[in-house]
Amino acid sequence: MTTREMLEKVERHEISIEEAERFFKDAPYEDLGFAKLDLHRQARSGFPEVVYCMGKEDPYLAAIYERLYRENGKVLGTRASAHQAEIVKAVLPGAEYDPVSRLLKVQDPELKEEKTGCVAVCSAGTADLYVAEEAAGTAEYLGANVVRIYDVGVSGIHRLLSKIDEIRKANCVIAVAGMEGALASVIGGLVENPVIAVPTSVGYGANFGGLSALLTMINSCANGIATVNIDNGYGAGYIATQINRLAV
Amino acid sequence: MTTREMLEKVERHEISIEEAERFFKDAPYEDLGFAKLDLHRQARSGFPEVVYCMGKEDPYLAAIYERLYRENGKVLGTRASAHQAEIVKAVLPGAEYDPVSRLLKVQDPELKEEKTGCVAVCSAGTADLYVAEEAAGTAEYLGANVVRIYDVGVSGIHRLLSKIDEIRKANCVIAVAGMEGALASVIGGLVENPVIAVPTSVGYGANFGGLSALLTMINSCANGIATVNIDNGYGAGYIATQINRLAV
Amino acid sequence: MTTREMLEKVERHEISIEEAERFFKDAPYEDLGFAKLDLHRQARSGFPEVVYCMGKEDPYLAAIYERLYRENGKVLGTRASAHQAEIVKAVLPGAEYDPVSRLLKVQDPELKEEKTGCVAVCSAGTADLYVAEEAAGTAEYLGANVVRIYDVGVSGIHRLLSKIDEIRKANCVIAVAGMEGALASVIGGLVENPVIAVPTSVGYGANFGGLSALLTMINSCANGIATVNIDNGYGAGYIATQINRLAV
Amino acid sequence: MTTREMLEKVERHEISIEEAERFFKDAPYEDLGFAKLDLHRQARSGFPEVVYCMGKEDPYLAAIYERLYRENGKVLGTRASAHQAEIVKAVLPGAEYDPVSRLLKVQDPELKEEKTGCVAVCSAGTADLYVAEEAAGTAEYLGANVVRIYDVGVSGIHRLLSKIDEIRKANCVIAVAGMEGALASVIGGLVENPVIAVPTSVGYGANFGGLSALLTMINSCANGIATVNIDNGYGAGYIATQINRLAV
Amino acid sequence: MTTREMLEKVERHEISIEEAERFFKDAPYEDLGFAKLDLHRQARSGFPEVVYCMGKEDPYLAAIYERLYRENGKVLGTRASAHQAEIVKAVLPGAEYDPVSRLLKVQDPELKEEKTGCVAVCSAGTADLYVAEEAAGTAEYLGANVVRIYDVGVSGIHRLLSKIDEIRKANCVIAVAGMEGALASVIGGLVENPVIAVPTSVGYGANFGGLSALLTMINSCANGIATVNIDNGYGAGYIATQINRLAV
Amino acid sequence: MTTREMLEKVERHEISIEEAERFFKDAPYEDLGFAKLDLHRQARSGFPEVVYCMGKEDPYLAAIYERLYRENGKVLGTRASAHQAEIVKAVLPGAEYDPVSRLLKVQDPELKEEKTGCVAVCSAGTADLYVAEEAAGTAEYLGANVVRIYDVGVSGIHRLLSKIDEIRKANCVIAVAGMEGALASVIGGLVENPVIAVPTSVGYGANFGGLSALLTMINSCANGIATVNIDNGYGAGYIATQINRLAV
Amino acid sequence: MTTREMLEKVERHEISIEEAERFFKDAPYEDLGFAKLDLHRQARSGFPEVVYCMGKEDPYLAAIYERLYRENGKVLGTRASAHQAEIVKAVLPGAEYDPVSRLLKVQDPELKEEKTGCVAVCSAGTADLYVAEEAAGTAEYLGANVVRIYDVGVSGIHRLLSKIDEIRKANCVIAVAGMEGALASVIGGLVENPVIAVPTSVGYGANFGGLSALLTMINSCANGIATVNIDNGYGAGYIATQINRLAV
Amino acid sequence: MTTREMLEKVERHEISIEEAERFFKDAPYEDLGFAKLDLHRQARSGFPEVVYCMGKEDPYLAAIYERLYRENGKVLGTRASAHQAEIVKAVLPGAEYDPVSRLLKVQDPELKEEKTGCVAVCSAGTADLYVAEEAAGTAEYLGANVVRIYDVGVSGIHRLLSKIDEIRKANCVIAVAGMEGALASVIGGLVENPVIAVPTSVGYGANFGGLSALLTMINSCANGIATVNIDNGYGAGYIATQINRLAV
Repeated sequence: MTTREMLEKVERHEISIEEAERFFKDAPYEDLGFAKLDLHRQARSGFPEVVYCMGKEDPYLAAIYERLYRENGKVLGTRASAHQAEIVKAVLPGAEYDPVSRLLKVQDPELKEEKTGCVAVCSAGTADLYVAEEAAGTAEYLGANVVRIYDVGVSGIHRLLSKIDEIRKANCVIAVAGMEGALASVIGGLVENPVIAVPTSVGYGANFGGLSALLTMINSCANGIATVNIDNGYGAGYIATQINRLAV
Repeated sequence: MTTREMLEKVERHEISIEEAERFFKDAPYEDLGFAKLDLHRQARSGFPEVVYCMGKEDPYLAAIYERLYRENGKVLGTRASAHQAEIVKAVLPGAEYDPVSRLLKVQDPELKEEKTGCVAVCSAGTADLYVAEEAAGTAEYLGANVVRIYDVGVSGIHRLLSKIDEIRKANCVIAVAGMEGALASVIGGLVENPVIAVPTSVGYGANFGGLSALLTMINSCANGIATVNIDNGYGAGYIATQINRLAV
Repeated sequence: MTTREMLEKVERHEISIEEAERFFKDAPYEDLGFAKLDLHRQARSGFPEVVYCMGKEDPYLAAIYERLYRENGKVLGTRASAHQAEIVKAVLPGAEYDPVSRLLKVQDPELKEEKTGCVAVCSAGTADLYVAEEAAGTAEYLGANVVRIYDVGVSGIHRLLSKIDEIRKANCVIAVAGMEGALASVIGGLVENPVIAVPTSVGYGANFGGLSALLTMINSCANGIATVNIDNGYGAGYIATQINRLAV
Repeated sequence: MTTREMLEKVERHEISIEEAERFFKDAPYEDLGFAKLDLHRQARSGFPEVVYCMGKEDPYLAAIYERLYRENGKVLGTRASAHQAEIVKAVLPGAEYDPVSRLLKVQDPELKEEKTGCVAVCSAGTADLYVAEEAAGTAEYLGANVVRIYDVGVSGIHRLLSKIDEIRKANCVIAVAGMEGALASVIGGLVENPVIAVPTSVGYGANFGGLSALLTMINSCANGIATVNIDNGYGAGYIATQINRLAV
Repeated sequence: MTTREMLEKVERHEISIEEAERFFKDAPYEDLGFAKLDLHRQARSGFPEVVYCMGKEDPYLAAIYERLYRENGKVLGTRASAHQAEIVKAVLPGAEYDPVSRLLKVQDPELKEEKTGCVAVCSAGTADLYVAEEAAGTAEYLGANVVRIYDVGVSGIHRLLSKIDEIRKANCVIAVAGMEGALASVIGGLVENPVIAVPTSVGYGANFGGLSALLTMINSCANGIATVNIDNGYGAGYIATQINRLAV
Repeated sequence: MTTREMLEKVERHEISIEEAERFFKDAPYEDLGFAKLDLHRQARSGFPEVVYCMGKEDPYLAAIYERLYRENGKVLGTRASAHQAEIVKAVLPGAEYDPVSRLLKVQDPELKEEKTGCVAVCSAGTADLYVAEEAAGTAEYLGANVVRIYDVGVSGIHRLLSKIDEIRKANCVIAVAGMEGALASVIGGLVENPVIAVPTSVGYGANFGGLSALLTMINSCANGIATVNIDNGYGAGYIATQINRLAV
Repeated sequence: MTTREMLEKVERHEISIEEAERFFKDAPYEDLGFAKLDLHRQARSGFPEVVYCMGKEDPYLAAIYERLYRENGKVLGTRASAHQAEIVKAVLPGAEYDPVSRLLKVQDPELKEEKTGCVAVCSAGTADLYVAEEAAGTAEYLGANVVRIYDVGVSGIHRLLSKIDEIRKANCVIAVAGMEGALASVIGGLVENPVIAVPTSVGYGANFGGLSALLTMINSCANGIATVNIDNGYGAGYIATQINRLAV
Repeated sequence: MTTREMLEKVERHEISIEEAERFFKDAPYEDLGFAKLDLHRQARSGFPEVVYCMGKEDPYLAAIYERLYRENGKVLGTRASAHQAEIVKAVLPGAEYDPVSRLLKVQDPELKEEKTGCVAVCSAGTADLYVAEEAAGTAEYLGANVVRIYDVGVSGIHRLLSKIDEIRKANCVIAVAGMEGALASVIGGLVENPVIAVPTSVGYGANFGGLSALLTMINSCANGIATVNIDNGYGAGYIATQINRLAV
């Protein structure tokens, strides 16, 4: 309902002033006291709210999962600990936890959703796996088909080149790399579609917690690359799925 | 032509070894001595090579424009100076220069191209204009319809909110902001499609040449945001057009 | 007593040279050996000295609490651990500890104090709660009425807008945010009174322990914003109460 | 007019839907094309919009001054160049330019305004003068009485101590300092009211453009200090006047 | 023995070529395999070698203490753990350990040494104590009389001013401060003799492990200040004693 | 086999298209699923792949060691923990672990390899030992004779000068130093052959995890110095052995 | 006159209250409006106030020189431009300007002062000369004999070693170096007396305006080194002369 | 002549004490007053001293060129300006200046030197040319054959791959790149011999004057890479020639 439609209803007495006032002033969130749940996010953005689990206390986390599950029939949490997985499973036994990506998912089995399009997740080294899997799992949860291409760092460029045809088919490529993070630039020069670069904190010394890879990706000489935060596999999976969704 | 097709041609003597060798070894660029022009980029990426003018010496620049124009019928240059515009106009009189965006374009009038889809370019302040226009001009050159929404910084949030319906219609939103760069987060929370954030070096003091806005955007709490380099309007326009192209 | 008044008393022999000497040279603190307690701070600043508990050894902490309680009838400590709370309760059984804000308060029940005015404490996410509560608890201890408005981060701007009338009534607004810290700028553009911004270390990756939010707030494009140290809820509560006190 | 009042008017047909729609959607700014002027800011914040002159092109600047002058009867611009002062004087002959603070003011002589309260502006060295004067001039324009106390850096602490009684009388103290920026901490320990700290870029070597003074002020061990951006005299003057206004 | 004297001895056959060769090539250290002990340092610098204990493995540490004790009759170690103190006491029962300064000293009781001159050690807060004590203990071990003046941070300037006559008597003042580190500048403006500034890592938030205090001290506007590394109480005690030694 | 040779074979039907396709497309690595082992690296670079153990999970590490041992008859791992050493010894009992360098080596006793040339490894302090030993052990594993010269930091320059003839004989010198890292510059000025500088994270305060030593080495005023990452003894040993190999 | 003496005078009516009040409140500076001249500094610190010329406007500079010359019979200014030298010569024809050190001195020829002791100024490269000369000229002006030892950087260590006997005779050594700044550490290990290290901004690339040399010096592994700001030759000359003065 | 040989000569009276003293104390440099020329460097390092021209004053530069030319028959200067080239040509008419590399060379035509071995200089973009040419020109001057492979940045990886056979033949590869600097990692994975990485300051935004490329190269995941300072083409050419010299 647009602003105009609402105002016309008020003029025609089809809606009470109180209801209209709520439309304009009370935004569509639910206030749990400790948090304001954005229940209409799916309507607004096409994706339901995702829970950032790290640091959330046990009873709060359980309550949030329950409430969102009731609303949407499915919930995804990121950065969940094994302990948090147990807490959520106690209230939602169908919850599934992946210790590599630290994703904690629950989905009503009735809820049938088709995956569409294709997102490619490439990672430079085996140590970047946990970020790559967070990206891949997020994209799958949000509805994209995902192809995983791991351990294709630029110090052995033939590994990447041997997979390039597969990568080129994706609507969006996620490039995950730590250390010097050069993977995104090389992929950017080889594919036609957008590349979302994810620096990781993998490395040591002058890596400075991922700053090195972040600067590499932000300064990339290749076209068609944009970057998300260090270790932010979730963020990459989200925007890649937005892009993939536009393409299908 | 794929690797396999080429090898079958060699086996059937349809192509000489010399030609095949060139296919595998000599990549499709032209070596001008001072530069290697990537003439097949349009075929590979869907967009022709764009010239980064800053620092290129006059005769080199002219030669590059001429050669690319001959190949593609159109050329775009970024970060061009007024002086460079004169140099290029001397050899390609149809060239057009915009001093705000510093884009230097030339296009064969015969070459008719339809613009498609929609990219929204939002900027926080009037001082961010030169970056916003670089983004907008790039997206238009590469084939996107562009809607410009300028001076909608978050310190007067009503300006942004009054334009939000227009912004929501775009397949991709470019958010350009300097100083604290909060614009991207607010837009990210209001739209359904991907946001490409461009930090600018506008500001002073602890802005540190755009670092402040870059960090803000990279750390954004909103979903669906990825960031390009400081002042990199071109890069944002490029990836936004890739995304827009997928949507149409 | 001013310098002149003191000197006149000396001239009139109303005060001994020794006493006057102490006035000029011996400042009004008590030297416990391990610390110099500023007993006259309430007289000088209107607020009694507050104890920074972190790192203070047990017997020292207990002694400081006892001495200040004897002087002022109330003591506030910040960054106290649960263990330190036990230590202080052993000597001052009325002490109360809040594990979220880590404030450790004790107040003589006889001491009746009215709260005045209004300070609004706004926080961006649930993870910023511990800083927001330190700010709120400090402001209350120092005599201000406090209204708490939590989880109103800019990625869902409607949550903030729905509370804006309440925020506007405060004499001073404290804006607590981590990650990209954009909350302060948006509030700054919406209210008439001063905003004290508190960056938090909440976030990951390129957040760099709160540096990202600090730079955002320092570079804010909005008017009427000044910033305190990362996670310094106490400092924000203190200056907000000074401002609130001026208004009533 | 509140949301409710507007809706009641619509229900009672006292206002047309079109007008109401504009109330909700069209925020009170004027779109000049190159900028969106916030004409209702005085109503909203109590202070009219101030113009950041740096980088604004001549015709735009003149147009903005004219439009704001027509609306409010007075205009203040910051970071104006001598050249810009000439441009504005050509259209508004009463404009006055101060080359130290770089403030460019114009005010209708009919417009009589009383200054109220007191803001003290203290600066550490003579080189910090231009920032101190920007702060002082801003506070005066916005309606505060200002007392200036300059060249009282901590390396000769007796200069500051000799002025402390005067400083203590202010409702808000602005402490301007470059190099190591210690002035704010010392003042913070001596006064009862809030201190707004302004780091300046004055210094050399490891000063890093004011970063050193900024960090000093943000990390201050004294209570009651909040900090604005490096060289941001305007921002300090603004918030100090907000505080001063609350006190009177 | 100078170069010339040695050569004359060789010419006069008073010394064998082998001995002379050793004079020129083999420097006066003892190679323990895992370390090269600088046994002649006392002769060269006036002070014996001091042991940096942190990270040294148990048997190595014991061996180094024993060897140096045999040579010099006394040993000082810095950054020693309680465990290391036990290790050393097992071989040198007279060793004494101070858990605050983490100094581990042993001295032959026969070895009578007079302390001379005066070094003042001032610290800003109680949390800086461990660094201040490292400085004080080092200076005492190396032969200086030390006066300790603690908890005189600049946020309560009267505490420092009440002690200034005592501080002025020292040949060298050590100023120890964390957080914003302003103490050194204020002392520098009040005394005649050199000030050695020691930033500490005490603080939080934008303190960045002592960087804030380091920058403050390096950028000090006062004369007569030089700075050592963050938390380097030992280094300050050493150079202060060198200066004190020159004065007596 | 060069590209041309392969193509000639295809033309002469000496090789099937499938085999040739694999030559061009399938690079010589083995995909274990969790990792892509570069089995042909010895052929390509002259050195077999080395395993970075840190963070590799137990079964993966064991599998990688086994597979590489089968291929090359020897394996080197870096940054191995004592636990990982046990895991590998369980499958390859001949494995040897050095807790200082954290190198985990296994080599078929049949495999006789001569060491050649000479690499000198110099370190500044005893705390740099673990990095120096990683460099030395790597160089030995890859085939170089190594001379170790430890504890020759520049604060006692005679120790270094007494060893300089020995150092000068090496084909390549590795200079390992933490704190201020000045060792590389001094050695660089004294030797004829290349110096590989390794900054270490040894130090405290403004050392910033080795950044200080890294900047020192990168900015060295001496000729013939290039730098590897902080604590990267392995990287230094590798390139030094490449250089040494060229010399013999 | 001490506080006690003053108070006794007041009691005995030997001094009026007004005079005493001035003693306590009005510190001994002269307020020129634009600056507060510290006329009693010579009495307080043993050295007269030195003028930092950079950025001072012409009439102010001339007035300051005149006033200080009248008071002390001599004036030193640092960072003076050639233009400023002309300005000062116009009012004080005896002024002398040195374009390398940028020192601008004037001294009454009647004023006979003996130089005492010895300060050694060592510099690493010829490009560091301007800082070294600022240090040397300052020390001479303040009363020290100075020996200059230039171009003795550590990349050719024999140059430094050949001069070491001369350096060892100084009461204090100033070590001036840019690039990697290793000179201070090497000298620190060779001399008995304190070393004041001055990093310079000489260098390029990762030198970051002298940060590299600053970190090197602050992290020095040698004893007896303290550091002043980048390019702060004046500061080094000042403290070195304080130390030298103690020794004579 | 070794230390022993010299001592034996003294014993046998074949050399006077004075001469021997000079051997030990007076190092083989020539003191021009403003500089200490290292005339024996060719003997010591195999390469003559190279002049860093930037900032050297005209008469000094001319004197240094003349003196070194007299000694060695050839001189190389780096970072020379066109003006400096004229100054040197005035005294040494055979001098040759290259404005791209800013190298200023002069060589006695009689002096015939063979170039040996091979150094490959690869650069990422045309803007890196000036650094690449400094490296190439230095290597040629010092005696290496050089092959130049320019504009082979990783965003068009086929350009690099088409040249890889040529690159592999070099004894040492210099990889010059700005922006994100990924070139070194890719080359490192493709060649057998050492790679010297040179970050350049080419780029903008978060490039931070070459810091981004420096961090990339220092953190490279490839083996066999060591890094020199930003824009330090000379340093790379020097060490590459040392390596090349070992190989021939």
